[in-house]
Amino acid sequence: MNTEEPHPTPGTLKVSAKSNPNAVAGALAAVMRERENAEIQAVGAGAINQAVKAVAIARSYLKDSQIDLVCIPSFITVEISDNERTGISLAVERRH
Amino acid sequence: MNTEEPHPTPGTLKVSAKSNPNAVAGALAAVMRERENAEIQAVGAGAINQAVKAVAIARSYLKDSQIDLVCIPSFITVEISDNERTGISLAVERRH
Repeated sequence: MNTEEPHPTPGTLKVSAKSNPNAVAGALAAVMRERENAEIQAVGAGAINQAVKAVAIARSYLKDSQIDLVCIPSFITVEISDNERTGISLAVERRH
Repeated sequence: MNTEEPHPTPGTLKVSAKSNPNAVAGALAAVMRERENAEIQAVGAGAINQAVKAVAIARSYLKDSQIDLVCIPSFITVEISDNERTGISLAVERRH
């Protein structure tokens, strides 16, 4: 029997309205140096704003490594405190 | 002498917090059926939220045409009523 909690998908960052976009950008840049893709999940206008800013900042962090990023937004349903809420997923990929 | 007002760049959509994401998505989908790229400009969390939702919706509008979209966020400075404000530009491109 597997009694472990489900692991978050590697490369998935959950962003809230209180998240610091610079810190999220640092985490995203670290992931994107190692991987081809990542995902940012955000629920609510404040959180989505921070998520988009984080991608813009991460692009500048990655410039010296000759990596550029694109993101692909889609709607997701997220369970928060037993309520289903609609959020946004930003699939982040390296730009080729 | 050219006395005309400067034209907005074709394919540039300005989105506010009050914009209807479905309407913006329709306009964006129409542009992206004709062109390889477009730009969405938004200032403030509410506007950026609507802009990202519009891209997500436009992706579903374009699915039947076998067109998918990516967006590339960056910071821009926009003049609003003689004040300089920092906003977000989403460069929208077809995904190849």
